[in-house]
Amino acid sequence: MLEEIKQLVYEANMSLPRYGLVAFTWGNASAIDREKGLVVIKPGGMEYAKLKPEDMVVMDLEGRKVEGRYNPSSDTPTHLVLYNAFPEIGGIVHTHSSYATSWAQAGRDIPCYGTTHADYIYGAVPCIRCLTAEEIESGYEENTGNLIVNELRRMWKNPVKTPAVLCKNRGPFVWGKSAEEAVQNAVVLEEVAKMAYRAEIINPQILPAPKELQDKHYYRKHGADAYYGQGRE
Amino acid sequence: MLEEIKQLVYEANMSLPRYGLVAFTWGNASAIDREKGLVVIKPGGMEYAKLKPEDMVVMDLEGRKVEGRYNPSSDTPTHLVLYNAFPEIGGIVHTHSSYATSWAQAGRDIPCYGTTHADYIYGAVPCIRCLTAEEIESGYEENTGNLIVNELRRMWKNPVKTPAVLCKNRGPFVWGKSAEEAVQNAVVLEEVAKMAYRAEIINPQILPAPKELQDKHYYRKHGADAYYGQGRE
Amino acid sequence: MLEEIKQLVYEANMSLPRYGLVAFTWGNASAIDREKGLVVIKPGGMEYAKLKPEDMVVMDLEGRKVEGRYNPSSDTPTHLVLYNAFPEIGGIVHTHSSYATSWAQAGRDIPCYGTTHADYIYGAVPCIRCLTAEEIESGYEENTGNLIVNELRRMWKNPVKTPAVLCKNRGPFVWGKSAEEAVQNAVVLEEVAKMAYRAEIINPQILPAPKELQDKHYYRKHGADAYYGQGRE
Amino acid sequence: MLEEIKQLVYEANMSLPRYGLVAFTWGNASAIDREKGLVVIKPGGMEYAKLKPEDMVVMDLEGRKVEGRYNPSSDTPTHLVLYNAFPEIGGIVHTHSSYATSWAQAGRDIPCYGTTHADYIYGAVPCIRCLTAEEIESGYEENTGNLIVNELRRMWKNPVKTPAVLCKNRGPFVWGKSAEEAVQNAVVLEEVAKMAYRAEIINPQILPAPKELQDKHYYRKHGADAYYGQGRE
Repeated sequence: MLEEIKQLVYEANMSLPRYGLVAFTWGNASAIDREKGLVVIKPGGMEYAKLKPEDMVVMDLEGRKVEGRYNPSSDTPTHLVLYNAFPEIGGIVHTHSSYATSWAQAGRDIPCYGTTHADYIYGAVPCIRCLTAEEIESGYEENTGNLIVNELRRMWKNPVKTPAVLCKNRGPFVWGKSAEEAVQNAVVLEEVAKMAYRAEIINPQILPAPKELQDKHYYRKHGADAYYGQGRE
Repeated sequence: MLEEIKQLVYEANMSLPRYGLVAFTWGNASAIDREKGLVVIKPGGMEYAKLKPEDMVVMDLEGRKVEGRYNPSSDTPTHLVLYNAFPEIGGIVHTHSSYATSWAQAGRDIPCYGTTHADYIYGAVPCIRCLTAEEIESGYEENTGNLIVNELRRMWKNPVKTPAVLCKNRGPFVWGKSAEEAVQNAVVLEEVAKMAYRAEIINPQILPAPKELQDKHYYRKHGADAYYGQGRE
Repeated sequence: MLEEIKQLVYEANMSLPRYGLVAFTWGNASAIDREKGLVVIKPGGMEYAKLKPEDMVVMDLEGRKVEGRYNPSSDTPTHLVLYNAFPEIGGIVHTHSSYATSWAQAGRDIPCYGTTHADYIYGAVPCIRCLTAEEIESGYEENTGNLIVNELRRMWKNPVKTPAVLCKNRGPFVWGKSAEEAVQNAVVLEEVAKMAYRAEIINPQILPAPKELQDKHYYRKHGADAYYGQGRE
Repeated sequence: MLEEIKQLVYEANMSLPRYGLVAFTWGNASAIDREKGLVVIKPGGMEYAKLKPEDMVVMDLEGRKVEGRYNPSSDTPTHLVLYNAFPEIGGIVHTHSSYATSWAQAGRDIPCYGTTHADYIYGAVPCIRCLTAEEIESGYEENTGNLIVNELRRMWKNPVKTPAVLCKNRGPFVWGKSAEEAVQNAVVLEEVAKMAYRAEIINPQILPAPKELQDKHYYRKHGADAYYGQGRE
C-alpha cells in the first residue's frame, strides 16, 4: 500500500545524509496521505545505506502501526501530533544539522538577517523551551509535538510561514507541503543558521533585516502575488 | 540565436553550484552581446539539474524579452541596469554565497586584508545600503541596480577595479569582462570574505594591507605593466 | 591468524580518513580478541592508501609482538593499558580530528549541550591534563594510558558511558564495544565538539542541557529499558 | 631534461588544489636538483586543469631560464633565494591556503598549541613583516625571499625545524626535503592554523603546549632517536 508515498519518503530520508544534514541513523522524514489519514515514516535507528522504500512504516493518525516490518522512528509521536494540529502540512523532517543544532544548543531564536532567510521563512525561527522533567517522563515524544504546537499558537505563528522550529538542547523540526519541501526547508534552515552565526561575529551590533525587505522577498515568492521564478507555484 | 553565448551563460550558471556558491535555484548568471545589445540570462526559479543551454532567455537592454520559453530571472532588471551603466562589463553573477552573504547581513564592507583580495579587487568590497520602503515598492529589482550604480559613482569607484558589491541584508552582485570572469570573481569574493572573517577573529586590531602591497599585487596582474602569469592578458 | 579481526581493524583504520578524522598517517585503530587476549593494531606511520589487512600487527596484552612484518603504531602501549584496565571495551581509536583536537589544545572538557551528545556520551567529555616531564621521559605512551585510566577512576567515570577523552595539547582517544563502535564514537565526538564550539559563540551564557533531558536521551538508547531504534541492542 | 623531477614537481603542483590549498591558478610548487644546480617550477598563471609535466620550467640558481615554453611563476625569484640560502631544502610550495592565509592577514605567528603541530614543526610558525615600499619597488619577489631568510636567521631558526613561514598580508611559503614533503608540510600548516584559530576561541587564556611535550613529539619523529612509524626516516 501507499507505494508512491513510500518511495517519496524513502527519497526524502536518503537526501538527508546527501545534503549533509545527518550522520549515521540520525534524523527522520515522513509524509502524510491526507485522504487516507495515513502517515509514512522511516523505521527507527536504521542505517541509511541499508534503507529500502519498502522498509518505510505506515501509521494511522492515532499512532497505530498499519503496515511495516520494523518499528517506526522513536520520534513518530512528535510527527503525528504535528500532522494532527497543522492540516496545511504534508511532510516533516527532523535532523541534527550542525549549525541549526548549535543554535538549539545555545537556546536562541535565529533572527532573520537577510533575504536568503526571508525567501523561505517569515520572521525568526523560534527556539522552543526544553520539556520539564514531568513532560519528559509522561510521553516525551508526544509532549515534544504538543509543546511545538502550543508555542507556535502562543506566538500567533502560522506554520506555513514558520516551517521550522528549534527544540532547545536538541535540534530542528522542519515541515512543508510535502516531504520534499520539508527537506528543502531543512537545507535552507541550515544555511541561514550558518550565515546568522557568522554575521553576528562580523558585526556584534547587527539588527534583523528591515521588515519591508523581508516582506518583499517572502511575498515575491509566496502567496497570491508571487512573481519569483516562473510565477505563483 | 546567440547559441554560443547561451552555452557560455549556461556553463557559468552551472558552475555556481559546482563552486559551492549557490543551492537549489538560488543565484543567476548572465552575459551581454555588446554588438547586438542583447543580454542572455538564466530563467527564473529553475533547478540547476534541469537547466539546458536552450532554456537561457534573451532580453534587450530595455527589458523586452526577445527569445525564450521561460520568464527570465526575477533579478533581470538589476542586471540590465548594470549593463547599461557599465559599458566595460560583459557578464554578471548574483549568488547567496555563504561568507559574502554573511558580510552583507552584517552590513559591512570587506576590507582588503591581503593579496588574495588585492590580486583581483582593488580596495574594499563596498556594502551597499538597503533600499528604502519606497524604492522597494516602486521597482525593487531595477532600483537595486540603480542604487549599486549610484553608490559606486558616489564613491568614485571604477567598476573594473571593483567588480563586486554586497547588497545589505541580501548578498553579492559580481561582474567581469565575461560571464566566466564574473564567476571567477564571485569565487574570489567568497574566499576573501572567508579569510577576512577569520583574520578579524585572530587579530581584533587588524588593519588593511599596506597600500603599496595592494598596489603591487593588483598592478602586477592588471593593467599595462602586468607581468604576472604569462604577461598582460 | 585472526584474519577476521585484522579485516575489521583494517576497515576501521580505513574509515578514519573517509570520515575526515585524520590526514596522512595520523591516527590509529585497534581491536581486541578477549578470548585469546590478543590485540590487533595498525602498523606505525604507514599511509592509508598503502595499508592492507595483512599489514595489521598482532600484540599480546603484555606488549610483545605476536605477528606482523611491521612495527605496531607508536601509540600501542596506550591502547594496551586501556584494554587491560577496561574489560568492557573491544576497540580503540586515536585521531587528530579537527574540532575535538581544538578542544584538547584549549585544555577544556566538552560540556554536554544537547541530545546529539547525550545520545552517545553520558556527561561531559573530560580533558585529561598533560603528562609531566617525568611521565613523558619514562614511557610516554604507556603513561598516557595510565593517566587516562587513573583520571577516569578519580572522576568515578564509567568507561562505557564515557567512551572518549581528550588528552590536553594532543587529541582524543575514543573506544567502544568494537573497533567499529569506537570509530562511530569518534565521529560523534567530532560532531559534538563542533556544535559545542559554535553554541558557545552563539550564546556565551550557555549552560549544559538539563540533566533529565540528557538522561532521557542516553537511556532511551542504552541500557535495559532502551526503546530507540529497533529496541535494546 | 630532468624528466623525473618535472614529473614530481607537476604532481606536487597538482596536489595543491586536490588538498584544497589553492583555487584557480593560485600557488606554486618547485624542486631543486642539487647536483645540477637547477630548479624546476610551475609556469606562471596557468590553470591546473591544463598543466602538463612538460610545461614545467627549468631555471638555474642565478634566475636564468634553462628550458621551457612558458614564463616561470612570478614568484620564482623568491624560490631561488630560498634554495640558495637553505642548502638542506629540496622543495618549496607557496599557497593561499585559507586558514594559514587568515593568520598571515592577521599578522600573527601561529603558536604551537598541540602535538599535531609539534609532530612536524618545531615551535611557532613565524609571521614575517610586510616589505617596505622600497623593498616592494626594487625587486618585490627577490626581496620577499631575502626577508624570509634574514628573519629566520635573526630569530636563530633552523629552516629544517621551521619548514614554514607566513608572509604578512599575503600567505605561507613552505618547504621540505622534497616537493612532496613541502606539500605535506603545507597541509599540516593549514591544519594547525585551523586548530589554533578554534582553540583560541574555545579558550582565550590558552597557552602553548608545554616545551617537554613539543620536544617529545618532534624528536620521536625526527632526528637520530626517532622511533615513530617504522623508525628513523
